[in-house]
Amino acid sequence: MKATKKKVAPIAIDKYIDHIKSDFVSDLKELVDIPSVSMDPNCKKDITKTAVRAKELINKFGATAEIILTDGNPVVIGKFHLSDDYPTVTVYNHLDVQPADAEEWETAPFSMQIVKDKYLGRGTTDDKGPALTALYAANYAHENKIPININFLWELEEEIGGPNFARFLEVNKDNLKTNSIVVSDTIWVSRDKPAISYGLRGMQCMTFRLDTGKKDLHSGLTGGLARNPIGEMAHLISKCYDAKTGEVKIPHFYDDVKDLEQDEIDNFIASGFNTDIFQKAHELYSLRTTDVMDAAKRIWAMPTFEVHGLIGGYTGPGVKTIVPHFSEAKVSMRLVPNQDPNKIIQLVSDFVRSINPDVEICAQGTLQPYVGDFAGPYSQAAKRAMQRAFGKEPAFVREGGSIGAVLSMKDILNVPITFLGLSLPEHGYHSINENYDWQQASGGIKMFVHYFEEIVKIMDPKES
Amino acid sequence: MKATKKKVAPIAIDKYIDHIKSDFVSDLKELVDIPSVSMDPNCKKDITKTAVRAKELINKFGATAEIILTDGNPVVIGKFHLSDDYPTVTVYNHLDVQPADAEEWETAPFSMQIVKDKYLGRGTTDDKGPALTALYAANYAHENKIPININFLWELEEEIGGPNFARFLEVNKDNLKTNSIVVSDTIWVSRDKPAISYGLRGMQCMTFRLDTGKKDLHSGLTGGLARNPIGEMAHLISKCYDAKTGEVKIPHFYDDVKDLEQDEIDNFIASGFNTDIFQKAHELYSLRTTDVMDAAKRIWAMPTFEVHGLIGGYTGPGVKTIVPHFSEAKVSMRLVPNQDPNKIIQLVSDFVRSINPDVEICAQGTLQPYVGDFAGPYSQAAKRAMQRAFGKEPAFVREGGSIGAVLSMKDILNVPITFLGLSLPEHGYHSINENYDWQQASGGIKMFVHYFEEIVKIMDPKES
Repeated sequence: MKATKKKVAPIAIDKYIDHIKSDFVSDLKELVDIPSVSMDPNCKKDITKTAVRAKELINKFGATAEIILTDGNPVVIGKFHLSDDYPTVTVYNHLDVQPADAEEWETAPFSMQIVKDKYLGRGTTDDKGPALTALYAANYAHENKIPININFLWELEEEIGGPNFARFLEVNKDNLKTNSIVVSDTIWVSRDKPAISYGLRGMQCMTFRLDTGKKDLHSGLTGGLARNPIGEMAHLISKCYDAKTGEVKIPHFYDDVKDLEQDEIDNFIASGFNTDIFQKAHELYSLRTTDVMDAAKRIWAMPTFEVHGLIGGYTGPGVKTIVPHFSEAKVSMRLVPNQDPNKIIQLVSDFVRSINPDVEICAQGTLQPYVGDFAGPYSQAAKRAMQRAFGKEPAFVREGGSIGAVLSMKDILNVPITFLGLSLPEHGYHSINENYDWQQASGGIKMFVHYFEEIVKIMDPKES
Repeated sequence: MKATKKKVAPIAIDKYIDHIKSDFVSDLKELVDIPSVSMDPNCKKDITKTAVRAKELINKFGATAEIILTDGNPVVIGKFHLSDDYPTVTVYNHLDVQPADAEEWETAPFSMQIVKDKYLGRGTTDDKGPALTALYAANYAHENKIPININFLWELEEEIGGPNFARFLEVNKDNLKTNSIVVSDTIWVSRDKPAISYGLRGMQCMTFRLDTGKKDLHSGLTGGLARNPIGEMAHLISKCYDAKTGEVKIPHFYDDVKDLEQDEIDNFIASGFNTDIFQKAHELYSLRTTDVMDAAKRIWAMPTFEVHGLIGGYTGPGVKTIVPHFSEAKVSMRLVPNQDPNKIIQLVSDFVRSINPDVEICAQGTLQPYVGDFAGPYSQAAKRAMQRAFGKEPAFVREGGSIGAVLSMKDILNVPITFLGLSLPEHGYHSINENYDWQQASGGIKMFVHYFEEIVKIMDPKES
């Protein structure tokens, strides 16, 4: 990364995009090639390296940047400042990534491959590519004197639930003063259908553990009389939910689920969500339903129960005939408004105890569900910006995932939050062979520039 | 191991036992310290080494021995021959062992530790200790001219189901000519209650596999709509059996289970089987029942359904919120007379398909159940021998495990088979911290000597 300032003449946006393409790709490769896996303690030095490179990158464009240390991973703040009289918008992204098992990938996950206009590697779409897209847009806006100050807030702990982010916001509140926030970490319905999220599912992770003895035993000697903790755990899971339909059977689980408004349903229908595209994009062999509206509700507006893995017993080749002495199920529930994670923990715990009192229950990560207002001025500005950039009217949908930072920013910074995502279902978000592409990056730069233009009209710095 | 012949004067059995104790322990250590794990391809040279040491050991007592190669592991044959006019008894043991994860053990599994009269190490009780016990007894019998020829048949593939043993028997039928067989690889009810097994459970191993997609997915993006193969597998398992009670719910599973005869029930009751002792010996926190007769039936005379492990999804630390793309359950069923493994495979396959047609079913290892006649002359000779050696009347029970060699020997050699085991529940058979002890070894030497004396009276070589 060269340390010189990238000065661009006040040119048209299309020319700018052509001009910076090769720089964009090499900057992205530099970021993607650092394995900033926040879940892996061995990647600590790569997290630091990513923060340093990110600061250098922001500085390259002539903006100021600082690395703020926290009790966990650092946060990078960047500022394109034009005037104290202008309003400020803050763009949130994260630069940490999910783990990647190289053996399962078609290309090395931490050595970005460029195949025509497609960029393959862990973090390309989640969320280094979108971060860089917004940065190149901010540079253009700044050079072209769009009357707005643009800040960046790049987290490095998002993939582990941002355990230190709320405290970071509290401590740096003054430094982070802004009139609005745009979060760029969400996903479209399909390549042909831009989408703006206005809500996120919450989440409650839990583990269920059952110990029935001190050691695995010979199933000939003890089988029939000894309890089988994996069998009992399978029974417990089958009582918690119907895996075929997905229906959660824990009493009162759905009590607080808020019904969708008619305009939300209209938007879901208008989104053009399509189960065939979804199934193909995620390489699934079948789905729980092919009814479009049912399917859309399932991923955006309904809670889930999911079992992620079951530990215990023998998992090597063949069949070793032991009676296992423990089992542990890793489960989580995605939650929707107005479900309360604490109430859910209580419901699940009571239910699990009623089915099997020997099971030890442990609540892990918690994220509140979030729903914003898609009729408000920022959301409408986002809609216009996206339509101008991609030539298609975006749909307002909810996001099935969870972004902990959104809830912290809402509580602590207390300004409007909009979502402007660029990832596509086929980008392999959190999966193998993750990728991003120039079509989304170039359109995305335009989208952010238009968004900055749009919100100038509605943001009044005096109010902040 | 010294190559000199161990000549003992015709002394009383108690004196002999005192005399050979230190030799016995050092011979056992030499065998146990070789990690003859038949399941581990890296132990091939240790299997060969064990065969060579075993042959040397038999030769040390002046008996002849040969190593017979098979398509798999070799078999060691030893012969204490006195006269062609005498009947012949063959003692079956195996010298291969289960795997042992050193990290879980209190002592190194393949470096036998001697703690007073207790011998700790993998294979001490299963089955190197009993093999050596019988060998020292045969030496005494031979030296004291008990009019019987004693052969040894030491397998090195028992723990992997003896895939080459039947063929070995066919090919070496003439060399293996015998009037009866005694198998020494079974377990007592408790230290205070000697037991003679007269039946074995059979076994059918299977795997159930379900693939719902090509890769693990983000549970936020896809959760609710994507199927969860671990959840569906949990449901399938809970349909196959009630893990709480152990009751198999597959239709017609119990149809061919032969009811126990009244004298079998009487023997089970007389065995003094005790659930407290069982629970403590196996370090279990609770049992499916504390009713003694129900418990005894469960391990000796009733079939089981067991799930040994479930592969798929995320099994690392914490909770990684993925939707898994496959799951594989490793299951087995212990079978009892008159269940037929092939019929069971059919029943299970039909049932699994009816519950979840996407599940792929694979049948693995098969062993037929076995039941002998405990009222016959050999069993009664075994009873008298055990009572003379240990001062307590043994119970006739069944063995919950399976020994493939027994079925092959029954079919191919077609002579009476008796079981004379020495292992105790607290010996950790197939578990961590396996051990054997001098009480069982010394009593066991007497028991075998008395058994040889007893069967001389009933075996007529002319009939062979």
